[in-house]
Order: sequence, then structure tokens, then C-alpha cells
Amino acid sequence: MTPVAPALEGPAMPMLAAAAEEIPLAGWTREMKQSPLRDILALLQRPGLLSFALGVPAAELFPVAAYARAARHVLRTDPEALQYGLPLRRLKSHVVGLMARRGVACTEAEVFITSGAQHAMSLLGQLLVAPGATVVTEEMAYDGMLNALRPLQPRVLTVPSDVAAGMDVGALEALLESGERPALVYAIPEGHNPLGASMPADARRRLVEAAARHGVPVIEDDAYGLLGYDDAPAPALRALDPRWTLYVGSFSKIMAPALRAGWIVAPEPLVQRLSILKQGSDLDVCSFAQRTLAAFLDREDVDAHLARLREVYGARRDAMLAALAAHFPAEARWSCPRAGMFAWVQVPGADTTALLRRAVEEAGVAFVPGRAFCAAGGTRGGDALRLNFSRPSVDQIHDGIRRLAGVLAPRGAAGIRPPFLTTTSLAP
Amino acid sequence: MTPVAPALEGPAMPMLAAAAEEIPLAGWTREMKQSPLRDILALLQRPGLLSFALGVPAAELFPVAAYARAARHVLRTDPEALQYGLPLRRLKSHVVGLMARRGVACTEAEVFITSGAQHAMSLLGQLLVAPGATVVTEEMAYDGMLNALRPLQPRVLTVPSDVAAGMDVGALEALLESGERPALVYAIPEGHNPLGASMPADARRRLVEAAARHGVPVIEDDAYGLLGYDDAPAPALRALDPRWTLYVGSFSKIMAPALRAGWIVAPEPLVQRLSILKQGSDLDVCSFAQRTLAAFLDREDVDAHLARLREVYGARRDAMLAALAAHFPAEARWSCPRAGMFAWVQVPGADTTALLRRAVEEAGVAFVPGRAFCAAGGTRGGDALRLNFSRPSVDQIHDGIRRLAGVLAPRGAAGIRPPFLTTTSLAP
Repeated sequence: MTPVAPALEGPAMPMLAAAAEEIPLAGWTREMKQSPLRDILALLQRPGLLSFALGVPAAELFPVAAYARAARHVLRTDPEALQYGLPLRRLKSHVVGLMARRGVACTEAEVFITSGAQHAMSLLGQLLVAPGATVVTEEMAYDGMLNALRPLQPRVLTVPSDVAAGMDVGALEALLESGERPALVYAIPEGHNPLGASMPADARRRLVEAAARHGVPVIEDDAYGLLGYDDAPAPALRALDPRWTLYVGSFSKIMAPALRAGWIVAPEPLVQRLSILKQGSDLDVCSFAQRTLAAFLDREDVDAHLARLREVYGARRDAMLAALAAHFPAEARWSCPRAGMFAWVQVPGADTTALLRRAVEEAGVAFVPGRAFCAAGGTRGGDALRLNFSRPSVDQIHDGIRRLAGVLAPRGAAGIRPPFLTTTSLAP
Repeated sequence: MTPVAPALEGPAMPMLAAAAEEIPLAGWTREMKQSPLRDILALLQRPGLLSFALGVPAAELFPVAAYARAARHVLRTDPEALQYGLPLRRLKSHVVGLMARRGVACTEAEVFITSGAQHAMSLLGQLLVAPGATVVTEEMAYDGMLNALRPLQPRVLTVPSDVAAGMDVGALEALLESGERPALVYAIPEGHNPLGASMPADARRRLVEAAARHGVPVIEDDAYGLLGYDDAPAPALRALDPRWTLYVGSFSKIMAPALRAGWIVAPEPLVQRLSILKQGSDLDVCSFAQRTLAAFLDREDVDAHLARLREVYGARRDAMLAALAAHFPAEARWSCPRAGMFAWVQVPGADTTALLRRAVEEAGVAFVPGRAFCAAGGTRGGDALRLNFSRPSVDQIHDGIRRLAGVLAPRGAAGIRPPFLTTTSLAP
């Protein structure tokens, strides 16, 4: 096992030192909360830990050799490769091609290259959200959008999440009917993080229709949209209606996170404003990364690369589902993720936040407790675990889920199978 | 000539499309101003243009071969090189070494790696500035700090700038004595952008003392602090008093901008908060860039590299001053920049904003009109030019300044020498 990466989701930085400093801070940063994952980061540093915790791609699938070739080519042939740089048109053209694979027709002028998807969310937040304005997210969702907005101190409303279908669009419709006009709605229709859900086609249509009817922009976080494992993945929201959907894509999950490259697809007048905001935030996008990425995409077969990712991650997803069925208690429930990197498992009666320390200490296995994804101080997800299946191997998944089940099921407790029993679970 | 990079300083994105979009934006972004440099960007795209406009290092001095070696080494030996990554301790240790060269004693725990100096300013803004709070900058200063703060819509106060000494510290003292308690004061004590000024030792002491006395943090933008051309450069503000100075450094000017790597030196409790803010903004710092930079610094002689930059840029500065003396009108005034990349030239009676188009069209030379650096809608700098001397060669500098002087001095106007006359100017 390699050392574990930082907490890339969830409130992440534990153990804020007592604010002994005298420097006056912006009020809200003074009160930055201790993370509910306070001790997880320290736990994750243990050598040998098998982690299902973070939303991290498998390093062995990074196209390192091809990337190194592309980097060498760029450094040899382009004297401005390490200079400041404008957005690279050739890279935007590749993004247009990737968007077509998500069912989205767009032009280069509608593509805005960012320093990763998180930075895309941060810039869209600055564009749409005045200080103190209202935003809508799901009860259970990746908290990156809210983290990005925190400096603007928005009012946060949530709509319920369904484990299989993701956002409860009916609840959103009701909220908008009631007169709320949020500055944005944050949605993860495909490969939902943390639920692994994919929004049904009908709900997608209702979502974009509600956005158009009430004039509310939707941030579509599609970081996992190109990692669909069954049939054809549903088209992106933006494919249904480009007017109100601001699409966020990422090279982190399909290429490598260290490129720090992602993109927004938005109406052209907004792209110009995003450019000003980006300059205030971090000037430009690494021109070397842009050039290397473009050179890679010029030369390599991106469809073959994506097919390889889907094949390996799909097999790992299947292994995860099989291992859950084999080892987890009968009352546990999960749904089959059609896309993305996560399985969401509910174990009625379990306290997964308390379980985490025991899982690490007794079984050498880590996950993220569901509560970590519950927005705005809510209390749901307390009996759930988010399990990442993209990073560990099939063997590690079988072994790790077995060990985790051993901690989950009290030995010999009435009505619960003893640990390490490898029957086929009756869970769905 | 290579193509010209984007406007990296100054209000940058020209020509906002008429906001035909229906998507409701945060109020202030709806009113984003047209840049006073509106047409400059288009002008800068002209092939063959000789540009003194942007604050851009010389690409021929990038350590491309050594960087390529370091990148190859990292990709070959580190399987996690393209993964998400934690801040790299080895890189922080190199930053501690660079800080010692600025007279600053700090620990790795006080070093926070950022995605460049602009991102450092953006994060410090989020940390210190509540929406609508008051900040202080100079009348003439790099506007990156204000650009970064714009989403928070601060109240901006300015203090005068002196062409030779930079910030008028007496005016700042008076402002603080009057009871103002800004959330931050933005200062560029060394290699001031755009003035090229270096703050005298006495003013530095008074500045940190005033900050401590009134409990006001100072953002020290030291992007050019390692590029001092005379004797020993003055130590950084943070060397005088680490308690109230939040130091911002950059690898862009001393290594290469495309690394997108910079740093903050701050009290340790603030570093933890900055880490949370960075996660909300753009997750992590490119682990590949961090590793490659660390590998480069491990192997190469950084002092020899810095000495080479100082030698070349120092010679270009000398060429710029000699060319100004030789070609510019007698009434023009400038001071000798001790550090950085800019000379600031005042030509009494000139309208440099109007001059720019003629300079580009008639002489094929570009610069930034002084007015572009005047904060908060002020009107100073209208007779000034900021000239970059780091990018063009000595020959280009002599040639370009001669051509620029030809446009500046109306041919045969009374009391002004005709253009192309190469006498020694009487200007200081």
C-alpha cells in the first residue's frame, strides 16, 4: 500500500490549533468547525492501512509513460512551455470532444479551462453567489461546493437525497414553487458522490425544466460522468438544456489528479466573466499541464484509455458488490453504482462514525462515515459507509470488505452472523 | 518574438459581451467593469510586437533542461507522482532556505504551499476579510490583491505611493491613528509593482511597528524579493517582525510561472486554516509540480541560478535606464529600480493611455499605462508608463525605447528634442 492521500472530500483539516494568534480573522474563519472526521486523517497515516476512504483514482492506471512522452515533447519543442499562458485552444477542442461523449454539443468558446473541478465550483460560486445569498444542495452530497462557497457565507437549503436516484427533484420543485430563488442548485446526476446513484432520465428532465421555469442555474458536477459501467450512461443535464446548466468536468478522475485541470461548459458571456474571476483567484491555468495534456490527447486513443478505466473500475465495483453480499450483515443495504467510484452501504443500527476507529485499529481498514456528507449540520447518514472501489485491487476489496464485516458484526451477537463467515448475503 | 502572454496584471479581460444571458449573477459580477486596458490585449496579439508590457520572466532563463531531468526522475521513481498529494515537506524545507535568503527565520510548519502567489493572496483574503470589510492598499499598486478580494466586496482605502520609496507609511500611520482597523494592509516593499521602488529600512520598521501597535495584519507581497540587483537587498518585513506580517512568495519569477507554485509564511495556527480554505478553492497543490520542484532544488545550485537571473536582469535594467537617458524627453523622470522587473517613467504632460495605441501602431512597442495601476477609480499615473525590463534582451531594450521615445516626443515640438536623437538625457 502506498501512503494515503489527504482527505479530498468531507470537512478535512482536523485539529485546528487553539486560536492563540492575535491576528483578527474574518469572523467565520475564526469559527471554522472541527471536522467530524477530526481523527480520521491521523488514522489514515498508518502504514499498511487498506483504505476505501478517499475518492482517489488508481495510480497504476495513470498513463504515466504516455504523459512523460508528451511532457518531454512539449519541453523540447515549445520554448514558452513554462511561461504564463493563455487558455489553450487545442485543449478546449479536446474538451468539446469529451463533451460529445456525454451527449453535450458545445463550442470551444463555451469551454473554460480551470485548475481542476474544485476550482471550477469555486469560480462558479463567486460568479453566481453574492455574499449571504441562498444556495441549494442535497442533504447528502460532496461538500466541495459548500466548502468553496464558505467565504461568501451563503444561506444553505437542502433537499433530500435518494440512495438510488440521487437528488429528490420533487422536493426541489416544491422548494422553487414556494418562491425560493436560490443563486444556484448543486447537482451530481451521474456517479453521485457519496451515494453512487445515477439520476433517472425522467428526474433529469424535470430538474432542467424546473430550473428553466424558475430561472435558477444548476451546477452539474459531472466529475464521474465518463466513468459509467453499464450500457450507455445517461446524457448529462446540459445535453437536455444548455441554458440553465453550468457543467463541471474534471481530468482528475479520467487522467490524473496532479494535472490540476478541469473545465466548465457555460454560456459564452459567462466564460468571459469566469476568466476575470480566475485571474483574481490564481491567474492562469498551468500552461505546461495544458500543453502536455493536449499533446497527450493529440497522440493517444482516449476512447481506449476510457474503456480500460471502465473495465478495471467496473470489475472492482463488481468485486465490491460481491464482497458486500458475501460478508456484510443480512440487514445491510446498498445499491448498485452505475458510474463513479463509490458504493454507499447502510447498516441499520450501526454507528459508522464510532465504527471507523475500530475498523482502522482492529481490521486495518478505512472508509468514510456517512455522516461526513450530511450538509448543514444534519444528522443523516449515521448508519452508512461510503466505500471507494476505484483504488484498491479486486483482491484487496474482497479481503478488506471481509475484515470490515468482521468489525461491523459483533461476534456471536444474536441474529447477526459471526464475522468471517463467507455465505452469500441475502441483502439486495 | 514569441506570442505575448495574457495581461497578468491590471484589470485584464476586455470586451465583456453584453450580458444577454438570463442567468442571474452575483450583483457585482453583473457590473464587472470594462478594463481601462480594454483594447490592449488585442493590440498585444500583433505579431512582431516588442512588449515592455507584462511582468513576465525571460523564457530563455527557465532551467528547462534541469526541470525536464527532475520531471523524468519523478515520473520514473514515484508511482504517486500524478496522484492527489499532501503538501510536500521537502519542498517546504527548500522554502525555509529561500526565506533565510530574505532574512526571515521560519519553520516548515509556518510555510504553506499555494498554487502561485496570486492564489496565496486570494486565500489570505478569504482568511482575513469578511464580506464588506475594509482593506488598505496603495494608490498605485499591483491590483491582484483587490482582484482576489472582489468577490467579498470589501471597502477599499488607499494610501499614497512614492515613486522611489513605495508606500507612504506616514499616511498609513495617520489612517490607523484615526481609528481605521482594516482587515489587511497590502504592501510590496521590494521591487514594487508597478513603481520598481524599494521601501527604505526606516519605513519598513515604522510599517511593522504600526501594524503591531494597531493589531492590523500586513500582506507582504515579495514576489520580486529574490531579484535584487544592488548590494544586499533589504530584508523582508517579516524579518523585522513575524507577528503581523503574512509573507507571500512565488516560484514564478525565480523558476517558471507554469509551475503555479508559491508560498505563504504565516503563524502556524493560520496555516491550518489556510489549508481548509485551499481545499475549498482548488483542493491540493499539484503534487507533480511540487515533487519536480523539490527534485530540482535538491540537485541544482539555487544560488547559482539566482545569481544568473540577477546578472541578466540587472544588465537589462541598466540597459533600460541607459536607453531612457539616451532617448526619452528631458522632462521625463524615473527612478532606479533596485529589484524586480519594472521601471516606472513619468512624462509630465503625456497621456500614456492614449499613447499606447500609437506606440503599438506606429512603433510596434507596448507598455502598460500607469493609470491601469491606480486603485479604486483614482486618476493618478495618467502621465506614467510601466516598463518591463526582464523579458526583452538588451538590444531589444535599446531599440524599443528609442522607438517609443519617437512616438512620445512630438516631432519638432518646441522645447522637446526630436525623436531618434541619441544624446544623454539630463533626466535623473
